[in-house]
Parts: sequence; structure tokens; C-alpha cells
Amino acid sequence: MPVFLTSAEADFEQSFTTLLNAKREDSPDVDAVVADIIADVRGRGDAALLELTQKFDRLDLPDSAALRITAEEVDDAIKSVSEAERAALELAADRIRAYHAEQMPENKSWTDASGATLGWRWSAVSAAGLYVPGGLASYPSSVLMNAIPAKVAGVERLAVTVPTPDGQINPLVLLACRVSGVDEIYRVGGAQAIAALAYGTETIAPVDKITGPGNAFVAAAKRRVFGKVGIDMIAGPSEILVIADKDNNPDWIALDLLSQAEHDESAQSILITDDAEFGSAVAVAVDKRLETLERRAIAGASWRDFGAVIVVRDMDEAAALSNRIAPEHLELCVTDPEALSKKTIHAGAIFMGQYTPEAIGDYIGGPNHVLPTARSARFSSGLSVMDFIKRTTLSQMTPDALRSIGPAAATLAESESLEAHGLSVLARLEALNR
Amino acid sequence: MPVFLTSAEADFEQSFTTLLNAKREDSPDVDAVVADIIADVRGRGDAALLELTQKFDRLDLPDSAALRITAEEVDDAIKSVSEAERAALELAADRIRAYHAEQMPENKSWTDASGATLGWRWSAVSAAGLYVPGGLASYPSSVLMNAIPAKVAGVERLAVTVPTPDGQINPLVLLACRVSGVDEIYRVGGAQAIAALAYGTETIAPVDKITGPGNAFVAAAKRRVFGKVGIDMIAGPSEILVIADKDNNPDWIALDLLSQAEHDESAQSILITDDAEFGSAVAVAVDKRLETLERRAIAGASWRDFGAVIVVRDMDEAAALSNRIAPEHLELCVTDPEALSKKTIHAGAIFMGQYTPEAIGDYIGGPNHVLPTARSARFSSGLSVMDFIKRTTLSQMTPDALRSIGPAAATLAESESLEAHGLSVLARLEALNR
Repeated sequence: MPVFLTSAEADFEQSFTTLLNAKREDSPDVDAVVADIIADVRGRGDAALLELTQKFDRLDLPDSAALRITAEEVDDAIKSVSEAERAALELAADRIRAYHAEQMPENKSWTDASGATLGWRWSAVSAAGLYVPGGLASYPSSVLMNAIPAKVAGVERLAVTVPTPDGQINPLVLLACRVSGVDEIYRVGGAQAIAALAYGTETIAPVDKITGPGNAFVAAAKRRVFGKVGIDMIAGPSEILVIADKDNNPDWIALDLLSQAEHDESAQSILITDDAEFGSAVAVAVDKRLETLERRAIAGASWRDFGAVIVVRDMDEAAALSNRIAPEHLELCVTDPEALSKKTIHAGAIFMGQYTPEAIGDYIGGPNHVLPTARSARFSSGLSVMDFIKRTTLSQMTPDALRSIGPAAATLAESESLEAHGLSVLARLEALNR
Repeated sequence: MPVFLTSAEADFEQSFTTLLNAKREDSPDVDAVVADIIADVRGRGDAALLELTQKFDRLDLPDSAALRITAEEVDDAIKSVSEAERAALELAADRIRAYHAEQMPENKSWTDASGATLGWRWSAVSAAGLYVPGGLASYPSSVLMNAIPAKVAGVERLAVTVPTPDGQINPLVLLACRVSGVDEIYRVGGAQAIAALAYGTETIAPVDKITGPGNAFVAAAKRRVFGKVGIDMIAGPSEILVIADKDNNPDWIALDLLSQAEHDESAQSILITDDAEFGSAVAVAVDKRLETLERRAIAGASWRDFGAVIVVRDMDEAAALSNRIAPEHLELCVTDPEALSKKTIHAGAIFMGQYTPEAIGDYIGGPNHVLPTARSARFSSGLSVMDFIKRTTLSQMTPDALRSIGPAAATLAESESLEAHGLSVLARLEALNR
């Protein structure tokens, strides 16, 4: 049974804090193994990749050239994709592309009163690597969500690594690569793939930024190569918070809660409502759906261990609790979702109104589904084109501008005992005033 | 002597790669000590802070209340600041504030052809912590560069921690806090300050994001609390690349190179020029300035160990090398800096023309001086208001929008074997089509 809390009760604060701090994930410590794998790939390049792929993926590759999945192999594999799936994937790609195109920020330049010209210019990361998990966690939607922002940002070279255990690969993943404009695909996985992307081998050229989900080995490897390359966030288990009033279909809300719970036994689904009876009805509906759901073992464990129904006095209280939870996904199934959304400021993505189930956002809405977990929406954002571009600031002084603001720079340099800093300004001012 | 390379020579590529990969910093491994300090502060709160402050800063504080530097203490301390310094600091603050105000991105919302309303909203991090080093590395300019973007972003609560070894504190640092709008100042430093900001104590409320430079202990602590809170980049030693043609004053360029070199023996200053004679003249000018420079021991070691003069055939070659170096600071002292700046895309900050010494950017230009080091300008940007805000994506479907795009979401959910995801869409579609 999930916890059932009522904000009016005396021990609520304590129970809520316990819920907030529940540890949902134990990452195994694989750091030492990962360090060895990275060193091996750095030292031996392709030879290490071939050996590790044989060991971990039970896949014998004849030579380095076989590491790459060729365009012809992709052509062949994607023939098996049904027309409905292809059309759905293409619609998703189009919508994700359109949304992310809106995110591209503009360069800016202006001249201020001193005569100084200031501004900045954005440019894309030259090469990016996208890790795609193999096996069960191999999601084509995740390829779209990572690859399309990179391509919209203008990344010239986008390389995918995907393990193919026993030679198996999901044709939809390859189609998603094709549709997203991925440039290179390699059948390598685990820490060895991250090492190859970060340091390069004879066959795989190094990249500047690595994104994409993965298991504990992949996460540990990403942490280790961070600094040498950029990485995206290391995601924790998924979460949803639904804030719903009584004017909702309990079954719909139950399905929304379960669509997080079915991801992972460590996922968390929370309902906040101002109507206790509605809360109970949703809990009943969850149990009913759990009787027949394909992934009922996973979803049931998640709901039992980490699920919660919280009854509040009013929606302002709901917003305050939501901001403390800082959920990855937030559904607002209330009369005025727009108004409430302005109060729930710490959330990765908000889904407004009863016709916007979170699953829309996972696949087809347009916004990214790679979102901050574990309360990190307090300080971070979901994946976007911003992850694949960087800003160079620009400044240009005229002689007048230097005359106007240079002396203050020299004063501050002197305060900080940085003489050459000051002299670099003063030498120019002297010449100008001569 | 710094290295002197010529791109036309046969072994250039090898020499350049060696320069690029030179390891300039050995971070001591303080991780175990830092883990203990963090655990201590989490466990004992203020009591641990008082004890550690006595131990590391040789400062006996009577009680928890004394951890805070009061507004009256700030009032007293800043009386000693000269009028020239105060005016310089205020001018710098005004210019930094004006520049960063331009960075605030806009919220966006639109309705697409399906009837779906999409967009996003930015919001500030609620509370931020700024670490300010004590002693020699205590730079008021660094307070401005960290605190002002946070305040421009709308951070409500900005707390500074600064160690006061033997009770000493730099009045200009306190004035910089005052001028920037810092809300709270605590006399705590090291890993214990980072732990207090991340986890909170009885006196110091926890924050959501921590920025600011620090020694190896501070850096290790920031790495450890990352995830619990957001952190800024962990900066390496400073770097400058100057690209200059022969129409420059060798002494000015020498001073620009030395203004990086004087920061730190691990700093790196590189000149690229298309005129060998000019390169030699700059090297001579550096040596001459080194005879009398106050920080000649530090600047001389940096220039000797990591400095370089590179002679290229033309400015296109200079741009290509610059992009491989991906410098933190880049000065373009050439006839058409604007044109060249469009080719040098991997750089933290660009200073254009001979009247824009890098020191202007350290203090007073307006752009931030916290910039990506160690070639990370390939994939990251300097500090900005973006570090103190985060994006919540928004979507709202109408019944029509759900009818239009919902089926594709259900198809993709089925492909990924996520049944509840599909059902959450299909249950709604069924009701709508009934």
C-alpha cells in the first residue's frame, strides 16, 4: 500500500519529510571496474573495444571496421518496421524538432554609453556522442529526444553507440537514428563506449559532449570522463506528481500514476488532491489496473514502496508541497492549470489539464523527456538545444571607452595586487594620453 | 624559456600536441578528508562548524550566532575602503549588472496546428550559496562576477561563505557583497562551508546551488555535494591566447600575456602571430617586464614552463589552432577582429582589438570573468544568469490535439512495451470518441 497522508494531521510534516528523503536507489559501486575499462580503451583503442564487446555482449566482431553499423545495415534493419510505427516516429520527430527549434537563442551585440561594444555569440559543440542502451531499456523515443536537439543546435558530427547483446538490435532504434540525422552508429556499449567517445580510438573519433541514459557502468564512466568532455545530467529513477481536484476521472489519473510506476521499481508516483474521497477513488483505480497491467510486478512494487496520496486543504498548499518535491513530471488536472502552473515553479515539465497525460510528453508533445530527477528541478532544466551550444562573450573597447572605464580596472587590479593586469591597461592609457 | 613553434616546420604537429596536452595541475587527493568533514557538518551542524573554524582558521567563535557577519560589522569594515576603490567597484558592479541583465531569456508559449499549446517558463533558483576564498586569493571582483548574475536572475536568498583566517577579512570583499546585494555572509570556509550550504545547519539554511572558486578542499566538497545541489564548473588554472599581427605594440602584448601568467605558476599564456620577428619582440618584452614585475616569481615560472610563441603562415591557421586550444581568454589584436572572431568559435571570452586588454574583462567590461578552462570552451560557457535559472517546459492538449497526436503516442508506447503509457492516452481517446 502506498502512504496516504493528510496535511491537516499533526504528524504530517514529519511524514512528508520522510517521503521526501526516501532513498529510492542504491547505485552499485562499479567505479574501479569502470576505471580499468577506460584505461584499457585509452591504451589499446579498437582492440580493447573488440575484446570487451566479445566479453560483455557475447558478440564476435571480425575487425575494427565491423564496429560501425553501416548505412546499408540500417537500410536492411528498418525494413521490418511497420508503417504505423514509422509514421508515429516521424510525427514525433517532427514535433520534437519544431519545439526545439524555438529554443535556439540569439546572438546579441550592443554599444554602450562608454563606446564599448559588448555581446556574445552562440556556437554549436563540434561533435557529440549519444549513448543508447541495448536490450530492454532500448527506447527509440530516447534517441529522438537526445539526437534532435543536438542536430537542431547545429552539431556537425553526431555519433551513437549502442550495445547489441548477442547481435540483437532494435530496428526502431536504428530508424530513430536515421530520422534524427545521426551521422555514425557503433555497436559498442557500457563504459567502453563512453571511453571511446571521450578519448577516441582508431575507428571512433573523439567527441566534445556525451549525452544519453545508461546503466551504473555507463553513469560511472560518464562521471569519470566529465571535464575531458561535457556530459548531461546523470538521471535517477523517474517520478511523477499529479495534482488533481475531484473533477477528474480516477481511472485516468490512476493510469498516469502507473505510467511512471511501470518504468522501474524505484520510480515514484504521487497524487496530491484537495478531496480525500477522490484520493481514495484513485487508489482503488490503481489497484484495479494493477490486476491486469503487463508490467504489474514492476509498477506494483513502485506504487507499494514509493507511491503516495496526499490530501491537502487547498491548491495553494498543493503548490507549496510540489515546490518541495520539485518533481520531474508534474500534471495539473485542475480547473485553472495555467494559474496553478505559475506557482509550481520547481518542476522539470508541466502537463496541463486532463487531456495532457504525461505519456504525451514522453513521446510526441514536443518538449524533451530528459528531465531533472531527484529534486534537481530546484536548480536544473531538462535537456535542450542549450546542452549542445556554448556562449562566447565578446567585448571591444575604443580608445574613448578605455579612457572612460580603464582607470577603474587599474584601481581594482591594484587592490588585488595584480600588477601586470593594471599595467596592461595603464600602458595603453599612457600612449593614448600622450 | 617558453617554447617557440613555427607551423611551417616538420615536427610542428607533434610539438603542438605536446603543448596542448601538457598537464599543468596536480590536484592533491583530499577526497577522504573532505568526506569526513561533510559527514561531520551533516551530523553536528553548527558545533562542527565552530570546531573546524577554530582548527583551520585559528578563530575562536563564542557561539553559533557569531558565525554570521552582521550588517553592522560590514558597515564598520567598509569604512576603510578608499573612495577610489569604492567608485571603481561600483562602476564595475553597474557594468556587470547591465551586461547580465541582457542575458535574461524570455518565456515562450505558442499553439500549434494540432491545437496543442506548448512552451516553457524560466524561474530562478530559490537560494544560492557563493564561496569566496580567504587570504591571498580573496578577490572582490570574483564576488561581483558570481553574486550579480544570481541577483539579476532573481535569486531571493544569496548566502556568502568566506573564511577569515586569524579573523582577517578583506573589506573590499565585504563591500563587493554589499554592492551585489548579498543577503547573508558567514565566516566559514573550506569543505565545511560547502557542506553547510548544501545540507544546512542550525544557523545556515541550505541552498539549491553553489558557485564560486576555492582550493582543492572546496573543489572536492563541491564535487561531493553535486546532485544534492547544483554547482558551477570546477575551474582549472587560467589561460590566455593572444592572436596578434605585427601592427601591435610588443610591450602591450607582453603585459597581456603576463597578466595571465601572474595569477598562478600553472597559468598558461600563448601568443600566435603571423610574424616571427614580432613574436621575438614580444618574448623580449616579456623578459624585460619580468625584471621588475612584483609577481615576477610566479609569472616567470608560468611563462617559462607553459608559455609559448607560435608563428603561423596566416590568420586562418591561427583560427584553426585557436579552436584546438579552445582558450578561456582570447585576444584578437588584428586588423579585422570581428571577422577573425567568427572563425575562433571555441573560446570562453574574446577581447577584440588592441584597446581591449583581457584585464578589462577581469574587472569592468561587463561580461563574466568566470570562464571555461582546460579546453572545456569546446562544450561549455562562462558563468551567466543561466546558471541561476531553470526552465520548466509546458504543454497542454485540447481534446482535438489529443485526437490528432494521441494515437501516435499510443503506438510508440506499445513499441516500447509500456502499456500504462499507452492506456493513459487511449482511455481518454475512448471517452472523447464515445
